[in-house]
Amino acid sequence: MTSVIDGKAVAASVLEECRAEVAELKAKGTVPGLAVVLVGDDPASHVYVGSKVRTCADLGLHSEKIVLPAETTQEELIAVVQRLNADPAIHGILVQSPPPKHIDEEAVVRAIDPRKDVDGFHPENVAKLALEDPTGFVPCTPAGCMRLLAAAGVKTAGAEAVVIGRSMIVGKPMALLLMAKGSDATVTVAHSRSKDLPAICRRADIIVAAVGRPEMVKADWMKEGAVVIDVGINRIDDPSTKKGYRLVGDVAYDEVAPKCSAITPVPGGVGPMTIALLIKNTLQAARQLG
Amino acid sequence: MTSVIDGKAVAASVLEECRAEVAELKAKGTVPGLAVVLVGDDPASHVYVGSKVRTCADLGLHSEKIVLPAETTQEELIAVVQRLNADPAIHGILVQSPPPKHIDEEAVVRAIDPRKDVDGFHPENVAKLALEDPTGFVPCTPAGCMRLLAAAGVKTAGAEAVVIGRSMIVGKPMALLLMAKGSDATVTVAHSRSKDLPAICRRADIIVAAVGRPEMVKADWMKEGAVVIDVGINRIDDPSTKKGYRLVGDVAYDEVAPKCSAITPVPGGVGPMTIALLIKNTLQAARQLG
Repeated sequence: MTSVIDGKAVAASVLEECRAEVAELKAKGTVPGLAVVLVGDDPASHVYVGSKVRTCADLGLHSEKIVLPAETTQEELIAVVQRLNADPAIHGILVQSPPPKHIDEEAVVRAIDPRKDVDGFHPENVAKLALEDPTGFVPCTPAGCMRLLAAAGVKTAGAEAVVIGRSMIVGKPMALLLMAKGSDATVTVAHSRSKDLPAICRRADIIVAAVGRPEMVKADWMKEGAVVIDVGINRIDDPSTKKGYRLVGDVAYDEVAPKCSAITPVPGGVGPMTIALLIKNTLQAARQLG
Repeated sequence: MTSVIDGKAVAASVLEECRAEVAELKAKGTVPGLAVVLVGDDPASHVYVGSKVRTCADLGLHSEKIVLPAETTQEELIAVVQRLNADPAIHGILVQSPPPKHIDEEAVVRAIDPRKDVDGFHPENVAKLALEDPTGFVPCTPAGCMRLLAAAGVKTAGAEAVVIGRSMIVGKPMALLLMAKGSDATVTVAHSRSKDLPAICRRADIIVAAVGRPEMVKADWMKEGAVVIDVGINRIDDPSTKKGYRLVGDVAYDEVAPKCSAITPVPGGVGPMTIALLIKNTLQAARQLG
């Protein structure tokens, strides 16, 4: 009996929590505000930003979508960030990734006031995550994975968790969250240089796949009854579809799912959580900024 | 055939590297300087600080030992730190731990200019470690463990490493160092809430024990031929000794050593590395501050 973890439903329930928090904040005189900055005209980025702004509107947050031309200089972008840092109507600032190549993304992230860094990528928030300081902002994707585990009733304490991938966007923060006091998992971080990844995964009670390789994790990589969180979203060619491609995760879903106790689908698993946690972080920022 | 990793010898060779670097810095007109601040009269702290200052003198670094009375307030201590932050003769600042109980150690660490934070505990350096930014300062003990592994010729790439302990002083930074690009180990962080710690350790090619529990790691916790780095230094009663106690690690050395390919003794393993890496960090600070 495999339970399919419904990311849309869990995200919706997080957003309902957020709706209540927005009402509380408004009752205290604060309208939480999120600014999303987009440089250039990447169509996928426009779709993401559009849905963030719509979610804000639906929940009663103030939001600003700031679209800058592709030729915007780094100085100009940082000037926009600094204006937003100083704007009391804005509690969360997000610069949509990836920016055009002439922009140093790290420098832009450092320019964001860490108290408004709702993406959780500023070094100050990276440190707070490692130091288990709850005033920091946790990156949205790993925070979303933790919510999915909780929603599925997965006990992390003492469990063997294997995180595949060591990026600062997902792998490392995910490992830090799982090993933190209160979560208390025994965490292994595996990656492209790991030997015998299948054997490493087979000892896991919880697998988090975040490598960006389509359908890499196979059924024989898994212990019967494990929980699988699939962070990957990969396009693979599929001439049978209208678009000519379909989306698959890092996990070979069809063969893996029957062996799992619970698994997230792609799409509809981790994906929908990201916006929900972004809103959650924005409300945290609004509360902390007072 | 067990190789005993001689921490004193490795530390001495690191210090000889430092001696050459000091000469280079001096040739360029910089005398590297370390300030060690000690609050109160804890005898062990005085011993540690004394040996740091003597090592500086031996290598030709400038050093300052600042001893403040136990009743020093937090504000007074932070004022001292700020004076040192502004002092161009000082490149590294260390406030000896633990301070008296009325002092908020975290606030003191945050007051240190991160460019002079040679202990590597400032949030900015914690973040740089996670982000694999080599301009940051790595905490001395885990950095020393990495040097011991290198000196013993241990290949970390693809190896299974198990770190027992998840503190920010040793466990987490050690895990981050081992999983970083270039080290490329598959890293498991285990801790007091892990289930079946012996089984977890038995799969390790490299075990780093940093829990502070005397002789916890036993021979049957280990795979034949594993490498063991013992960070623990625990006093246990021993009426047969003059002092009435002896020092043991977190590893039951006598039974574990015969199964290892290499192991650090206690004392004489990790311990001597700490000062050597502190000096190394101070020289890095002096170079970076220019």
